[in-house]
Amino acid sequence: MRLYTYFRSSAAYRVRIALNLKGLDYEAVPVHLVRGGGEQLQDAYRALNPDCLLPTLVDGDTLITQSLAIIEYLEERHPSPALLPGDAAQRALIRSLSQAIASEIHAVDNLRVLKYLQTTLGVDDAGKSAWYRHWIELGFAAFEKRLAERDSRFCVGDTPTLADCCLIPQVFNARRFKIDLTPYPRIVAVDAQCATLDAFQRAAPGAQPDAE
Amino acid sequence: MRLYTYFRSSAAYRVRIALNLKGLDYEAVPVHLVRGGGEQLQDAYRALNPDCLLPTLVDGDTLITQSLAIIEYLEERHPSPALLPGDAAQRALIRSLSQAIASEIHAVDNLRVLKYLQTTLGVDDAGKSAWYRHWIELGFAAFEKRLAERDSRFCVGDTPTLADCCLIPQVFNARRFKIDLTPYPRIVAVDAQCATLDAFQRAAPGAQPDAE
Repeated sequence: MRLYTYFRSSAAYRVRIALNLKGLDYEAVPVHLVRGGGEQLQDAYRALNPDCLLPTLVDGDTLITQSLAIIEYLEERHPSPALLPGDAAQRALIRSLSQAIASEIHAVDNLRVLKYLQTTLGVDDAGKSAWYRHWIELGFAAFEKRLAERDSRFCVGDTPTLADCCLIPQVFNARRFKIDLTPYPRIVAVDAQCATLDAFQRAAPGAQPDAE
Repeated sequence: MRLYTYFRSSAAYRVRIALNLKGLDYEAVPVHLVRGGGEQLQDAYRALNPDCLLPTLVDGDTLITQSLAIIEYLEERHPSPALLPGDAAQRALIRSLSQAIASEIHAVDNLRVLKYLQTTLGVDDAGKSAWYRHWIELGFAAFEKRLAERDSRFCVGDTPTLADCCLIPQVFNARRFKIDLTPYPRIVAVDAQCATLDAFQRAAPGAQPDAE
């Protein structure tokens, strides 16, 4: 398998965690999101992924875009260890938590959204940081409340799931933007739990071949 | 089953289509997104859904938030007719197209994002409309390209799938904001195909009991 990735891409980071948890080897193909105006916008990558977003996974003849679709595919092709364990209700909970991170936080804080704020709306750096922080804080407050309804080692249960694959890259982003995490003790605890696992360590931005 | 919904909520509209396609009865509980500053922000709804977003589905003891998680749950509990038909590769394609609408267009154009633009960043109505249009046009251009790679009656294949559940509410939004759809003939053709089906007609905003 070939994964088009960028060390700091949150969505690529999710897929790297999933691949590692499942013990799947892959070739990392770096796509630099900043250099030359963004390699993801150049023709070579656009031909693979018309949305011009990371990641893209190529598995033989199958090309898949969108991180959650990729991880669902990996789950179907390589069911063990399960990243969506349990009955339909528990799987729904895992997917709901994952979606809350992917859509309500990450999509709104994505690089191209920040660029639009800056170039089209003239928002300055302080305004962009406040925007970034706002959606993380809003999303994390709700996520924390939902974690509090159970009390498990990982987001859902005692093993890492798709929800952890989504949460941990978002915590990385929050730390990078110096967001105070003390209001979210359960999120911090899940993050610490995941950090003990080799699969998460090897997926981290700093551990990537294209890290700067 | 009980669905917390608002006639114009894109995400609730997706779930209404899925419920209808599967022939499942449900009780619609309207949550008005505008009245009184938004009923979704009031304590009663916040207790159900800490993200304060629509929809929420309650099925017996199971409460699920996030439209895509809800539809995946319905698919697991009521597999026929399948909204994710085919092999792992085809299911990945359907999920990827769905995610591209849900995350890259809808999440960025969501009501609370538009409110932030207006109240915190002082963006005027013209600026908000341009924002709204920008993300639809960017997303639809990529979506159209991906539909062109196959040539099927619905987004993927000859039956409606999760991807159609996501696309059609977004086309409704695009029309409501008077976005020119002529650059997207395949999207328009899929929309016309879906419009012939009772399940889509009954899910439309204008057909809801809370329609204004």
